[in-house]
Amino acid sequence: MNERGRFITVEGSEGVGKTSNIEFICHWLQSRGMEVVRTREPGGTPRAEAIRKLLLDPGHDEPLDDDAELLLVFAARAQHLATKIRPALARGAWVICDRFTDATYAYQGGGRGIAASRIASLERFVQRELTPDLTLLLDMPVVDAQQRLQSRLEGAGGHRDRFERERLAFFESVRRTYLERATAEPERFVVIDAGRSLDEVQAMIAEALDDRISPWQ
Amino acid sequence: MNERGRFITVEGSEGVGKTSNIEFICHWLQSRGMEVVRTREPGGTPRAEAIRKLLLDPGHDEPLDDDAELLLVFAARAQHLATKIRPALARGAWVICDRFTDATYAYQGGGRGIAASRIASLERFVQRELTPDLTLLLDMPVVDAQQRLQSRLEGAGGHRDRFERERLAFFESVRRTYLERATAEPERFVVIDAGRSLDEVQAMIAEALDDRISPWQ
Repeated sequence: MNERGRFITVEGSEGVGKTSNIEFICHWLQSRGMEVVRTREPGGTPRAEAIRKLLLDPGHDEPLDDDAELLLVFAARAQHLATKIRPALARGAWVICDRFTDATYAYQGGGRGIAASRIASLERFVQRELTPDLTLLLDMPVVDAQQRLQSRLEGAGGHRDRFERERLAFFESVRRTYLERATAEPERFVVIDAGRSLDEVQAMIAEALDDRISPWQ
Repeated sequence: MNERGRFITVEGSEGVGKTSNIEFICHWLQSRGMEVVRTREPGGTPRAEAIRKLLLDPGHDEPLDDDAELLLVFAARAQHLATKIRPALARGAWVICDRFTDATYAYQGGGRGIAASRIASLERFVQRELTPDLTLLLDMPVVDAQQRLQSRLEGAGGHRDRFERERLAFFESVRRTYLERATAEPERFVVIDAGRSLDEVQAMIAEALDDRISPWQ
């Protein structure tokens, strides 16, 4: 066992299949004997989930200010890191997190137009030296992801929270930002073509995990 | 009328009499024809008050991380500034705020030991150029304030939230930090001896308002 576990994040827009693939990653790691902590952002602890609720609340007839949104995202992240992620890594567990700071750059930065430098200053403030060891970006064209999302939402009664109601152009910016970040950090990111069949996608993920994780053992 | 209103903050530990003196300040300004917006921090808008609830929540069996607390305080502040304070000042109203960023330096900095430089970086992030035009610091020895607080709490059934349960040493640090800030910025601060009678305190406040506010008319 490593003295320190590994931190794997899974990124991508709504509709790209994060949930089932995270499931796959967790089983893959557990079958190799790793302690796996599966978590998500924003959220992951009761206090951080309470902050998530404020972020997703469409109500109050009071628009959420962009800076306030960004600070809430990083408040939840600080709580999540201190309470769950850092302790898990310290005892050697592997943390699989559904979204992390790349999502902040993609959604609040690319999507909502907050300057990347403002996000970077809070990233340094909260994370200090910590970054993911591996980030799997599930990527597919926005129209395809939206179509998948649409059928899922109709099946679930059509409920959409504040973020899910955003427009197509927003998600195009989100996707573009994700891909730019993957290009800028090829040693951390693996981009997975999430438009292929689930079997094919999971074979690609398994290959990425094999390639990236084996050398750490 | 000024094109831009004035921003007055009232600071001090629990038990120094902020509430009744803020009442006095509002009446004093209103009787001189000013539009007064009375508000408080953390809070002041429905979304910011929801963040305040998270800050004061003693529950979850999950300690609130210091960085998370600081980020929540500034998230509430960003929302309050964008939604209430900046619009009020822009239309020429006078904003009277029960606590502001000096309280963050006093409580999270002096009290909880967060480095002032970390607070300053979030202060710049959220406030940009905005600072209070006048800060009234209601000051008295900690033991006296605690005694006043104690009798008030016993009267109200003894309920104490997370902050109010903190120890005497904490409040000594809070007071010291407040006084240091007042010394460092004498043009912005007026320190009021809150241990005197209410009439005497209010006469001092009126004098401070007269001295400081008249030249702005």
